[in-house]
Amino acid sequence: MSTAPPPASEPAPAARRPGGRTARIRAQVLEAVSAELTEHGYDALSIDGVATRSGVHRATVYRRWHDVGGLLADVFHAASQQPWQPRDTGSLRGDLAALNHEIQDSLSEESSIAVALIAVSFRSEGAARALRQLWEDRYTQSEIIVQRAIHRGELSPAVDARALLIAATAPLYHQLVLLRTPPDPQLPDRAAVSAALAADAGAFNRPHSAGQ
Amino acid sequence: MSTAPPPASEPAPAARRPGGRTARIRAQVLEAVSAELTEHGYDALSIDGVATRSGVHRATVYRRWHDVGGLLADVFHAASQQPWQPRDTGSLRGDLAALNHEIQDSLSEESSIAVALIAVSFRSEGAARALRQLWEDRYTQSEIIVQRAIHRGELSPAVDARALLIAATAPLYHQLVLLRTPPDPQLPDRAAVSAALAADAGAFNRPHSAGQ
Repeated sequence: MSTAPPPASEPAPAARRPGGRTARIRAQVLEAVSAELTEHGYDALSIDGVATRSGVHRATVYRRWHDVGGLLADVFHAASQQPWQPRDTGSLRGDLAALNHEIQDSLSEESSIAVALIAVSFRSEGAARALRQLWEDRYTQSEIIVQRAIHRGELSPAVDARALLIAATAPLYHQLVLLRTPPDPQLPDRAAVSAALAADAGAFNRPHSAGQ
Repeated sequence: MSTAPPPASEPAPAARRPGGRTARIRAQVLEAVSAELTEHGYDALSIDGVATRSGVHRATVYRRWHDVGGLLADVFHAASQQPWQPRDTGSLRGDLAALNHEIQDSLSEESSIAVALIAVSFRSEGAARALRQLWEDRYTQSEIIVQRAIHRGELSPAVDARALLIAATAPLYHQLVLLRTPPDPQLPDRAAVSAALAADAGAFNRPHSAGQ
């Protein structure tokens, strides 16, 4: 899922889109917001600071984004516009492990924008909502991993895809974001395998669909 | 584990300890800190506000706790002093489920001090360190759940207790603290069962101890 790749480490999508002056300005401003956030955090975020850093005129930033909340909302919006899909490795364990490696990379890189956006979600109700929506989208996109496994006969159609995906990915977030332990290179695979084994044993089957 | 009960919902231990004037003052002050944190958050926390709310003289609060960092450190210290041990239900699944119910309760109650302290850990490096230590203590105390299961023959001695405990509890934190989904009454049991099934299948066995 990815919930983590989303608040992506790469420049916001606008940065890569050709587009005209408007798209360029957006790219510059959102890059400046991300840089300010990862370097100085939410408290230091201001329209003036972003204008200076981005080289975009302050009046333009005010007119288009209004305030810090507007800037943050657009960072999340840009992240959600980034094309993303889970890798297809040919097996449930492989797909879950690939997903977990992406999450671990994005959460453990230096100046992680993913971690910065999670931190911001504890400061701003708007950011919390936006992050929740972004995660919701990524988990929904990741359900194809489970659908493929069902199609291959690896999983019962009774499996609750979301529950399985949460179980597979949660240890990464818990360790890297909350417990703040250094990244464990074996964790992405181990969390994938343990969720796949539990799924295999029926742990995520919906209560009333066991016979499906 | 519990990592959640620790930043406890009950008054700090000092409040329940008879003790003399010093203990009473500490209890009043720490209760005020917890109340300020859950109601207004880190930004509103101040020595003056805590002094007013606790009814303890401002000079006393300054002398003993120095600053907001000192107050926070003592809240964590008080939490770590609270006696806590995981329930013994007679089975691995039961013990993990009991643990998860405690965590879910503490994270989803109104004005959760556990959630407030997690939020603070994104603001203050000192609080992040204190929370990490508190979690470390709680996970260590929870390892007895795994030891009992090994003793009963439910688990192989090769199992990595910490990895199993993290897998069992992580979905609670991920859903309630990061994804901010409403509490799912079935999640504590489901997360316990899925971790126990994965453990059973060898998912948490240490690589070089498979034969032990």
